[in-house]
Amino acid sequence: MTKKWVYLFSEGNRDMADLLGGKGAGLAEMTNAGLPVPPGFTCTTEACLAYFDEGKDFPEGMWDQVLDAMKQVEAETGKGFGDPENPLLVSVRSGARVSMPGMMDTVLNVGLNPETLVGMAELANNERFAYDSYRRLISMFGRIVKRLDGALFERRLDEYKAQTKGGRDTDLTVDMLKQICEDFKVIYRENLGEEFPDDVWEQLRQAIRAVFDSWFGPNATTYRRINKMSDDWGTGVNICTMVFGNMGEDSGTGVAFTRDPNTGEKKLYGEYLQNAQGEDVVAGIRTPIRIAELQRLNPEIYQQFAEVAQMLERHYRDMQDVEFTVERGKLWILQTRSGKRTARAAIKIAVDMANEGLITREEAVNRVEPDQVDVMLHPMFDLDAKREAQDRGDLIATGLNASPGAATGIAVFDSERAMVQAEAGEDVILVRPETSPDDVGGMLLSKGVLTQHGGATSHAAVVARGNNLPCVAGCESISVDEDEAQFTINSRVVKEGDTISIDGTTGEVFVGAIPTIDIDLAKEQELAMLLRWADEIRTLGVYCNADYPDDAERGREFGAEGIGLCRTEHMFFEPQVRADVVKMILAKTDEERAKVLDRILPVQRADFEGIFEAMDGLPVIIRLLDAPMHEFLPSREQLIEEVTRLRCVGEDPDELKEKAALLETVESMSEINPMMGLRSVRAAIIKSGITEMQVRAILEAGCRQAKKGVDVHAEIMIPLVSHVNELEHQYNVVKSVASEIIKKEGVEIDYKFGTMIETPRGALTANELAEYAEFFSFGTNDLTQMAFGYSRDDAEGKFLLQYVEQKILPVNPFQTLDQEGVGQLVSHAVEGGRATRPDIEVGICGEHGGDADSIDFFHRVGLHYVSCSPYRVPVARLAAAQAKLRNG
Amino acid sequence: MTKKWVYLFSEGNRDMADLLGGKGAGLAEMTNAGLPVPPGFTCTTEACLAYFDEGKDFPEGMWDQVLDAMKQVEAETGKGFGDPENPLLVSVRSGARVSMPGMMDTVLNVGLNPETLVGMAELANNERFAYDSYRRLISMFGRIVKRLDGALFERRLDEYKAQTKGGRDTDLTVDMLKQICEDFKVIYRENLGEEFPDDVWEQLRQAIRAVFDSWFGPNATTYRRINKMSDDWGTGVNICTMVFGNMGEDSGTGVAFTRDPNTGEKKLYGEYLQNAQGEDVVAGIRTPIRIAELQRLNPEIYQQFAEVAQMLERHYRDMQDVEFTVERGKLWILQTRSGKRTARAAIKIAVDMANEGLITREEAVNRVEPDQVDVMLHPMFDLDAKREAQDRGDLIATGLNASPGAATGIAVFDSERAMVQAEAGEDVILVRPETSPDDVGGMLLSKGVLTQHGGATSHAAVVARGNNLPCVAGCESISVDEDEAQFTINSRVVKEGDTISIDGTTGEVFVGAIPTIDIDLAKEQELAMLLRWADEIRTLGVYCNADYPDDAERGREFGAEGIGLCRTEHMFFEPQVRADVVKMILAKTDEERAKVLDRILPVQRADFEGIFEAMDGLPVIIRLLDAPMHEFLPSREQLIEEVTRLRCVGEDPDELKEKAALLETVESMSEINPMMGLRSVRAAIIKSGITEMQVRAILEAGCRQAKKGVDVHAEIMIPLVSHVNELEHQYNVVKSVASEIIKKEGVEIDYKFGTMIETPRGALTANELAEYAEFFSFGTNDLTQMAFGYSRDDAEGKFLLQYVEQKILPVNPFQTLDQEGVGQLVSHAVEGGRATRPDIEVGICGEHGGDADSIDFFHRVGLHYVSCSPYRVPVARLAAAQAKLRNG
Repeated sequence: MTKKWVYLFSEGNRDMADLLGGKGAGLAEMTNAGLPVPPGFTCTTEACLAYFDEGKDFPEGMWDQVLDAMKQVEAETGKGFGDPENPLLVSVRSGARVSMPGMMDTVLNVGLNPETLVGMAELANNERFAYDSYRRLISMFGRIVKRLDGALFERRLDEYKAQTKGGRDTDLTVDMLKQICEDFKVIYRENLGEEFPDDVWEQLRQAIRAVFDSWFGPNATTYRRINKMSDDWGTGVNICTMVFGNMGEDSGTGVAFTRDPNTGEKKLYGEYLQNAQGEDVVAGIRTPIRIAELQRLNPEIYQQFAEVAQMLERHYRDMQDVEFTVERGKLWILQTRSGKRTARAAIKIAVDMANEGLITREEAVNRVEPDQVDVMLHPMFDLDAKREAQDRGDLIATGLNASPGAATGIAVFDSERAMVQAEAGEDVILVRPETSPDDVGGMLLSKGVLTQHGGATSHAAVVARGNNLPCVAGCESISVDEDEAQFTINSRVVKEGDTISIDGTTGEVFVGAIPTIDIDLAKEQELAMLLRWADEIRTLGVYCNADYPDDAERGREFGAEGIGLCRTEHMFFEPQVRADVVKMILAKTDEERAKVLDRILPVQRADFEGIFEAMDGLPVIIRLLDAPMHEFLPSREQLIEEVTRLRCVGEDPDELKEKAALLETVESMSEINPMMGLRSVRAAIIKSGITEMQVRAILEAGCRQAKKGVDVHAEIMIPLVSHVNELEHQYNVVKSVASEIIKKEGVEIDYKFGTMIETPRGALTANELAEYAEFFSFGTNDLTQMAFGYSRDDAEGKFLLQYVEQKILPVNPFQTLDQEGVGQLVSHAVEGGRATRPDIEVGICGEHGGDADSIDFFHRVGLHYVSCSPYRVPVARLAAAQAKLRNG
Repeated sequence: MTKKWVYLFSEGNRDMADLLGGKGAGLAEMTNAGLPVPPGFTCTTEACLAYFDEGKDFPEGMWDQVLDAMKQVEAETGKGFGDPENPLLVSVRSGARVSMPGMMDTVLNVGLNPETLVGMAELANNERFAYDSYRRLISMFGRIVKRLDGALFERRLDEYKAQTKGGRDTDLTVDMLKQICEDFKVIYRENLGEEFPDDVWEQLRQAIRAVFDSWFGPNATTYRRINKMSDDWGTGVNICTMVFGNMGEDSGTGVAFTRDPNTGEKKLYGEYLQNAQGEDVVAGIRTPIRIAELQRLNPEIYQQFAEVAQMLERHYRDMQDVEFTVERGKLWILQTRSGKRTARAAIKIAVDMANEGLITREEAVNRVEPDQVDVMLHPMFDLDAKREAQDRGDLIATGLNASPGAATGIAVFDSERAMVQAEAGEDVILVRPETSPDDVGGMLLSKGVLTQHGGATSHAAVVARGNNLPCVAGCESISVDEDEAQFTINSRVVKEGDTISIDGTTGEVFVGAIPTIDIDLAKEQELAMLLRWADEIRTLGVYCNADYPDDAERGREFGAEGIGLCRTEHMFFEPQVRADVVKMILAKTDEERAKVLDRILPVQRADFEGIFEAMDGLPVIIRLLDAPMHEFLPSREQLIEEVTRLRCVGEDPDELKEKAALLETVESMSEINPMMGLRSVRAAIIKSGITEMQVRAILEAGCRQAKKGVDVHAEIMIPLVSHVNELEHQYNVVKSVASEIIKKEGVEIDYKFGTMIETPRGALTANELAEYAEFFSFGTNDLTQMAFGYSRDDAEGKFLLQYVEQKILPVNPFQTLDQEGVGQLVSHAVEGGRATRPDIEVGICGEHGGDADSIDFFHRVGLHYVSCSPYRVPVARLAAAQAKLRNG
């Protein structure tokens, strides 16, 4: 018995995509679901492979099976292939296992010849339509099957169009179309040395061959190589009855979503074009009507479609994007697939469907991409207004999409002026070559930030993301001139005060204003419901990174169950202590340092009091001072400039002396690779007193709040530890200060001692660190930097993005955790920590804490929580639930 | 039966140090070897612990055992404890498992009382000696046993001494000593409210208690804590017959080595003092004679000692440092231990002893510390001259001992001037704030290098070590002023041209000249023999790091079996291509870059030709360009200064414009953490053409040499790889260029493709890298930097040395590999590499390749070779042999 090479649509289902191709399996599924699909059948992918094995010959028995299947189709449609009275026309389409859009070939209207043509014209009572179909067949056949240059036909068609008034396809007269068909046959003959085949079976045979051949066409081959798809899959060929929407007023064609893809509302959404084929809609020849109007125009068809749409949703259990044709009052479904939708719609549809009982809550949670939640939380440009701006040429540059959201405001080139302007009520976009901690004040009052240098994890980007501030970073094509307070791009100059708009979601920079659309989270009931469902599912905790009481409150609103990272750097930048911090760094003796630390203490304590209050009942993990010391000092480069200038002018010897001395100090503290220099625990050990002061501030704040009835859970975290002895040293300091304060204050508060795991060596020796650490928090940013040997400040601007582009790296490892390399360190450390201390608390507070793929890994590796910026908390809640559903 | 708490010396041996303490076990060993040791016994460490367990009471049976043992000693000596006729005196000394020098207590002359005193005086025919011994007993007993302040006795003694002419101990008359004894007893009674005990058994009991008690004395407790010794060890107590060298002309005391500890020559070496006790030698009251003179003075005793010395060497199979006393013509050995010796002596003694058949060659190889070989290879200051310089106050500062060896010359503060001076025949010490690749020319012509900043792995240190150039780095106490060409320390100014001397072995900096002693390696036959033996034993290969043909030749002379690291950076700094290198970096297009690379090619090729020739028949591993790009550009800081000055002066707008443009470029390329920025394989991928040029130079050079009959084994190594795709990319480039050249040149040469493993991620994914790499070379410097998160340029100056001092780190991980952390990465990578490619070649080319402890690890982990600077090759050969002997 020969193999079964051909399946009627009624013989397949959606699980047979490997054999029938995706499209074939889909048509089969719809057919069996009782949907009105034009009858047809599929030649299998195996047939395709066998065809190539046979040296491009149909495998044994295949053509006979095609003939059998055609008989079935003729029976079902009551039409005859090549029958002049009631001709059957078919389309011949490719369909691989996975869609390869535009890569492979299709031939329509197969079955037309001078005889059936006449039958068609009569049947349709439309000679024009028949000749139009015929000329399409000839050119498509010539192009696809015979590899003729399509331009040969196009040029001829254009010549005829040029003779009409309107110049459009529809302006061609029937006579012209007749002539065009004749002309096309001549072109065909002259270029190929053979006649266009009148034999409809010959047409069919050649069309099938052509589709098979297209599997190894240059486009398809390249596409597969890039997308790592196998040549051994083969393509199916779908032969399907042609239906025509252009058979009169009771015909038409349309595309519709079963729900509104913008809002998610449960109503049909789409377009319908009367008396037209699908190509006509694409060509934009006439304006289609909205699907809702179809109800008025043709209530019967509307009703038919509405019912089918509901069937489709029930069958596929998702919102569908449906292509359909109405041929003389009869509805045909040509294609259906899950519809693309906005973030908002995705959420509403998922929640609604669960509430309707169509899907489970778990499925609803799985239906929304975590990043769609993120998009929901940020203002966007009005899409139409943005498109107009683009059309006007206002899009002047594109940088890194460093922090999502859109913003419009006046460009200001200095942090302090930005603060002044913002306080005066202006919307400000802070534009800087790059930002430093000194700019934070200005950033926080701005609507958005634009920097010339720095990557997606540059200072600007991190601060912006942490504060939900739109940011375009590393926009290297602009040239910022601080002194002139302007930036230039090509010859265009944007001066301070000029209005610009930035889109941190896309990285685009515009001149002029573009209106934005904000979202009020409190009103987003579906989102809230979805996240509640996610919370019920997930086992991974979600904390937030928060440095200020405000952040802490916001994080809590967004569902954070604790603070995973409270950085204390900002406390050293606060204006009332800034001068003392410099003195602290420059102190020559422990005593001198102790004196200034005493003045810094109350400021820190007050900050901690606010945070503990905001997080009443929840854990607060506080990282002790982490920044390199020189960050608190004036810039070396600027001092060189000043000293040189003063020396040159020679007018103010006292100032020169002072600046020169300061420069010398700054130079003695400057480091070649500050990221790996004197900072964090190293500074704490070398410069005694800092840890003592910070622990004192934390514990005193905790005790004071505890006395007021606040439920305080402080966790003190030592950064950048790479050797257990560093941790032991700090453990002794912390324990001694803490017990002194608890004794003095007379109130017992719950506090833990722990460490960041952010150096490879820390991860490798985590078993030892766990002797002192009651908790670990992975600093995956630094861990990624050191594992790869990438300085994030430099890499993203200098090579990392090119690496991703050139596919040297699959993703930016600062955005999505490198599970293969850095992940080994994480899982090794988790195991090591647990070996020593089985109940050790493990979490992650790097940027990866808000990234869905990374969260999946953290769930699998068994962390207790992820911590991310407040605005990423909802994203993380959803991603954590999906991780649980995916991995159990 | 009660436990055995007491062991006669004849009952123990040297393996019983845990039970008897080190000293007790040593005395027992000597006794059983038939050496003339004064009879005695040991109370065990278990007795000590039991004593504390009993609340400071002797455990049951111990005192009885002491009494029994004393009977044995009395029998052996023919003396009686407390016997006025022939009194036995004993010393009571502590002795823990491990020596704790000066930490614990000793009581001498136990057994003297008014009656035995008289007997002693008569026996010795020396009243003075008897009373002198008695006053020593009283004061020592008061101080040690009763914890009286020793100053009470010292002051009284000083009063008497003040009454004499000479003012020394020996000037005291017998009457004075008698009076002193009486006075001491009064002090004792008045301060303690009890009489000094006349009962000799009471003296003994209390002395033993006192030694036990000293185990938990504050000094001993602190010492143990610092040295991580256990409190649970306890101390033994050794009760030993006193012998007296001060019993007349036929008595004396001495210390001697069985061979010359300076040269290793086989002859007794030491000092002897007639009619004196050991303390007198220490006190320096009289000048002892050299041991050789004893032969003349008392041939009989000399002969006795010479025989015993030989016995000791045979017994202990090592050169011994012996303390002995002659009491009335009878030789007593009080202590023997392996003698300390110079590097030279260590080598000669080991080789001689093996040749004498006293030890095996393996033992000889084990007897020499690898670092002793290193010391041998470097010039040293003449020790006397150095001491004189210190006494004169010429030692002005101490920095890091960055590269061993001593040098004297004139201070020069600029690399180019250093070259000029050196070429004019001056000995130059280059003094710089820190060095950069620009300084290499000047460094190589100098006799030594002194830098203010930078650690033991700073540029200066690495280059200096690689070129056997004495270097003191990170000498932060001096302040170098380049403009003034001088440095200051405190108020002292050293100007260009002043003579200074530096000792890179110790880190010392002197003003003025100090003569140095050089060593001619060719004449060091014992060293050569030792190294040949080492080569027979070791299985680990030893390669050298060599960038120039000269280095390669030197490495080969020192025994290197290949070049493990040929850095190509210097080829980009060579004067004839320097300008092109800058153009290469600034090139805006691949074409522009290709053009300048073509001009660099021949220079590199010529270099490689020389190296291949020098290493005929041996492998040469060449690392492609590794340095950060900006290292080839002018300094940013300097440009800021120049631009500011030009702007200020306003005279030369053209120069200003040019410099400002250059500054802008430099700034656009500057990196915050260049160590982790655009360099190495990253630059090779981003800036195409560089790898192509280098591979072309290597292969063309290889082919040309091969045609001349040179046996070329080139290995091309990609640096800083952290992802397999980087390696794949470079693999394709290398293979394609190489096969083109091999085809063109028409000669087949042996070349391999491999990678550095120097990022943690590279190590973690070594299994993947081995898909392309035929060899791995560990860059343990960078691996250490990234595992710890230490920038070596910054860490050593800023905190690392303090870390080592404070014992946060056990050693400097840049000198000795951190086996616990970084070692995990190394062994993981070796396993991963072998899993993929079982015959992969693995080696190490970081600085650790010349460090003995690290070499032991590399042997254990199964590397094929270590590579180090040429001058460390002998060290590595020895260390590799020792590793084999240690681990098999």
